Amino acid sequence: MKALHEGISVPNVEESIRWYRDTFGFQLLADEVVEPLKARIAFMLLGDFELEIFQYLGDDGKALPPGCRVPNEDLKTCGVKHVAWQIEDMDKEYKRLSALNVDVAMPPFQMKQDKVCFIRDNSGIILELIQKNACVP
Amino acid sequence: MKALHEGISVPNVEESIRWYRDTFGFQLLADEVVEPLKARIAFMLLGDFELEIFQYLGDDGKALPPGCRVPNEDLKTCGVKHVAWQIEDMDKEYKRLSALNVDVAMPPFQMKQDKVCFIRDNSGIILELIQKNACVP
Repeated sequence: MKALHEGISVPNVEESIRWYRDTFGFQLLADEVVEPLKARIAFMLLGDFELEIFQYLGDDGKALPPGCRVPNEDLKTCGVKHVAWQIEDMDKEYKRLSALNVDVAMPPFQMKQDKVCFIRDNSGIILELIQKNACVP
Repeated sequence: MKALHEGISVPNVEESIRWYRDTFGFQLLADEVVEPLKARIAFMLLGDFELEIFQYLGDDGKALPPGCRVPNEDLKTCGVKHVAWQIEDMDKEYKRLSALNVDVAMPPFQMKQDKVCFIRDNSGIILELIQKNACVP
């Protein structure tokens, strides 16, 4: 059993496709409307992990709850919180993301041996980035 | 860049550790209280993907929103929805999970070439299971 994808819901799937492609190089695999779900669904791939991006098309959709935008607030509510991605070099990656004006939720900090930061995608959804063993002397 | 972990918040980390260990064989890597976050945090590993399990210890924690328990309702609200896991044999796996009385959100169905089902963990959090190319003739 292996992790295959993260499912996220967004207000605008086209903007999300662009953001994940331009920010991290995700490749678009599929993009279609699934009528029974009243949803447009795109799949994108990075390495061997996929992102499933829903845009709900019904008129009872709900915006991202504001608490979800703040990692340490978000964890107070039970449920799925975030997916974390391992990166090779936090300093280099953070510089790159800053140059792209990516929305930073928590700038890099040390968590035990690792360097960690939290960013938001174009919809405000949190992603964690981790450089493992960055702080081992 | 590769997917490293899924973070979830639960009401009782000990029960979650037991459930993920007994249901899927996740191994406990760490389990400790992080005072600044008022949280107990466990890390578990399956293959090369980790589960980060938060139990918020403050008195302003919030239960899993009821809509999160139902996949097709859940996607109406923007945010992180679920992580999907690839499995080898849906029929075998579904039989095994049924014997464990796992809470089923959506029994197996065909989605294009794949077989898909949704289950809930002990806290009601959704997991998707996918057998890829199960329905290719």
